Amino acid sequence: MKHLPAALLALSLAVPAHADGLSDAADAALAGDAVAWEFVEGITTEVGPRQAGTEAEARGRAWAMEWLRGQGFARVAEEPYTMKTWVRGEERAEIVSPFPQPLRITALGNSAATPAEGLTAEVVGFMTYADLEAAPAGSLAGKIAFISHDMRPTQDGSGYSFAGPARWTGPALAASKGAVATVIRSIGTESHRTPHTGGTTFPEGAAATPAGALSNPDADNLERMLARAEGRPVTMKLVLTPRVLGDTQSGNVVAEVTGRNPSLPPVLLACHLDSWDLGTGAIDDASGCGIIAAAAKAVAATGQPLRTIRLLFAGAEETGVWGGNAYAAAHKDEPIAAALESDFGADRIWRLDSNFHTSNPELHNKLAQSVARFGVAGSTAEATGGADIGIARDQKTAILDLQQDGTRYFDLHHTPDDTLDKVDPAQLRQNVAVWTQVVGILANEAKAIKPAR
Amino acid sequence: MKHLPAALLALSLAVPAHADGLSDAADAALAGDAVAWEFVEGITTEVGPRQAGTEAEARGRAWAMEWLRGQGFARVAEEPYTMKTWVRGEERAEIVSPFPQPLRITALGNSAATPAEGLTAEVVGFMTYADLEAAPAGSLAGKIAFISHDMRPTQDGSGYSFAGPARWTGPALAASKGAVATVIRSIGTESHRTPHTGGTTFPEGAAATPAGALSNPDADNLERMLARAEGRPVTMKLVLTPRVLGDTQSGNVVAEVTGRNPSLPPVLLACHLDSWDLGTGAIDDASGCGIIAAAAKAVAATGQPLRTIRLLFAGAEETGVWGGNAYAAAHKDEPIAAALESDFGADRIWRLDSNFHTSNPELHNKLAQSVARFGVAGSTAEATGGADIGIARDQKTAILDLQQDGTRYFDLHHTPDDTLDKVDPAQLRQNVAVWTQVVGILANEAKAIKPAR
Repeated sequence: MKHLPAALLALSLAVPAHADGLSDAADAALAGDAVAWEFVEGITTEVGPRQAGTEAEARGRAWAMEWLRGQGFARVAEEPYTMKTWVRGEERAEIVSPFPQPLRITALGNSAATPAEGLTAEVVGFMTYADLEAAPAGSLAGKIAFISHDMRPTQDGSGYSFAGPARWTGPALAASKGAVATVIRSIGTESHRTPHTGGTTFPEGAAATPAGALSNPDADNLERMLARAEGRPVTMKLVLTPRVLGDTQSGNVVAEVTGRNPSLPPVLLACHLDSWDLGTGAIDDASGCGIIAAAAKAVAATGQPLRTIRLLFAGAEETGVWGGNAYAAAHKDEPIAAALESDFGADRIWRLDSNFHTSNPELHNKLAQSVARFGVAGSTAEATGGADIGIARDQKTAILDLQQDGTRYFDLHHTPDDTLDKVDPAQLRQNVAVWTQVVGILANEAKAIKPAR
Repeated sequence: MKHLPAALLALSLAVPAHADGLSDAADAALAGDAVAWEFVEGITTEVGPRQAGTEAEARGRAWAMEWLRGQGFARVAEEPYTMKTWVRGEERAEIVSPFPQPLRITALGNSAATPAEGLTAEVVGFMTYADLEAAPAGSLAGKIAFISHDMRPTQDGSGYSFAGPARWTGPALAASKGAVATVIRSIGTESHRTPHTGGTTFPEGAAATPAGALSNPDADNLERMLARAEGRPVTMKLVLTPRVLGDTQSGNVVAEVTGRNPSLPPVLLACHLDSWDLGTGAIDDASGCGIIAAAAKAVAATGQPLRTIRLLFAGAEETGVWGGNAYAAAHKDEPIAAALESDFGADRIWRLDSNFHTSNPELHNKLAQSVARFGVAGSTAEATGGADIGIARDQKTAILDLQQDGTRYFDLHHTPDDTLDKVDPAQLRQNVAVWTQVVGILANEAKAIKPAR
């Protein structure tokens, strides 16, 4: 722009956002966006952990609303809902015999409590979820099941689908075969003594049992103990004292960049504000909220967009998508143009997926081409969207997934190690650049974007 | 050896150890030693943490003695002594205001206890030890001192000397200026929520105060809080309830490969058997014990050495070199030919130092040349020996330091993460190869080895 005559320059600033201004804004975000970092640093330092349904999450909402107002967003508001809240208590595990030593454990969300003085039982080990499935009915009566299903890093996060069932339904499966408690190998890809928490589910009507995750080094050690015990029982003492608080209040935070034509369906950008309690929720998911807010602000700075850009900082994602579900229920009659969520850390985006690459290839290709310079490839994978944009799935609206590199995500996910130092500022800025480019195009797209199905 | 006539082969097995047999043994250790790994895996799995002066350390001694006998060592014995024992209790820290959230902390050895309900006070931060030194007398009255002295990785471990004083004497220094407690940034080079413990010292007659180490991410966070508080006091609640058990029994474990001439001073190889309680003591220092035992066994397998090789698996190194001191006192009248200790993890040896490179350059150079093929350089640095071979310093005998690469040692040192998975089997074997070569030469050296001073 340096060599434009002043009159032309003035004109260029007066018109609505256009491709060049948007590209410049995305390039500027890559070079030096500070908005996303400021959000992540601020909320992790001044609030820290923000567990769903707790007063810490409420402090997170208050902090985020003040910050969003400070950044110039319109219609910043809280949308409350009621949810069921579970909180962690004491958590300890130790091998009693034949090789007495402490193990590092954390309770899984929805775990039942052991007696305060603990529960002691023999451990029965299963190397995979399938091995546990194959155990005969009743065969775990009085035993602690140990599911050691191992997870390896994957760029696209698919390792989570491979290993995740051990946490999601492993404890319920073991309980159905008589187990008095279940410990799993952490659903995580690193080797530190920081076990990974996360929710587990017991079927309607089935009693919950105590359920915890051992750190990977502890799971390795327990495998070795079972091998070295040579038939002697390996006995574990488990103390887990979580509590169910029952119904508590939580809430979503919403904000927007109001479009020139607010009667058009908006573009919905989502993230979640709650975090597990062990870390400070820097990558899961303060980064997501920082990225979408920074991008929306950068787009607004290029000129008022045609469509409204709506931000949803969802509450209580981790413990059952309470916020996303509440948003879908409250706004079900408000059509959305397109929706996308950032909830996979802060590492670089490597692929753009949509659910309209066949129904609207022109727009899909335009989007893909616009971010190719940031190292993002288009794809023909079907975008399905993040947990908190169920509303878009309900409405069968356009969805994009800006796929982040997940290679190290599960090193940190749901652990005490989810802290600010794990966010790479350069990769965070690449996210903001890509989102700025994509959101700017979507928010200025006049036509309806038809998804394929 | 494949093509030697059978008669020659029989002869070669009958003669004492010689250069070729030794080289073959060292090469074989590099290719496939399993003895060191077996020790490290066995003791970390079947015993786990082995804190000095506790029953866990006693189980470690019993396990090690049985293992040494099983490996064929002679004169395996326990040499008991009495020591003062401190054990960890509960440990929690949280910021009360203005940014309430929990922090990850561990008590330092010799820390005093807070009241059971905790101690709450304002935090005063110091970026370096020198900053704390500069604080006026009395200026910390009623405060918690926070020493955030930062440590970077160094290959030669010199970062420990740079940052270590913050732990070794920082709490005493802060107490002398009125501090009611001290928290330090962990003396460690990684960024995980696994704080590093280790001993701190209070001068004779000075009362101990509560003292703990925050993990590096928590120290980062506290620094940011102090910056963002903008003059408001940052208040911390600290709960540390360690106990002093007083005098308890501990012991060294000794064993040997008896030499052809047991009247010659032996070669002393040391490591320590105790570990801090947080991890399983895989790199600190089960690996050291595995390495020296594997090397001594490999040397013995080449033929009976001229001199006895004495193994010292010292007790209670971590909490004040109780075992090393007891050994020095008990054996002070028994001359030693040369001494060396392995106590810096399991990563590869990169340098050979001695204290006789000027007084006996022929032997120094022979040793250095013998391990050059393993990537080990000779040096003119003065070897001073490990903590447990004070006896060699007392006797002014020959000392060697087989320097291990310390770049990642302080990622793990004194943390829960000191576990088997951190030991690289290939690097462990390189250690055994180098030790086999060096110990074999020393144990067959007929002449006295005069150190330079």
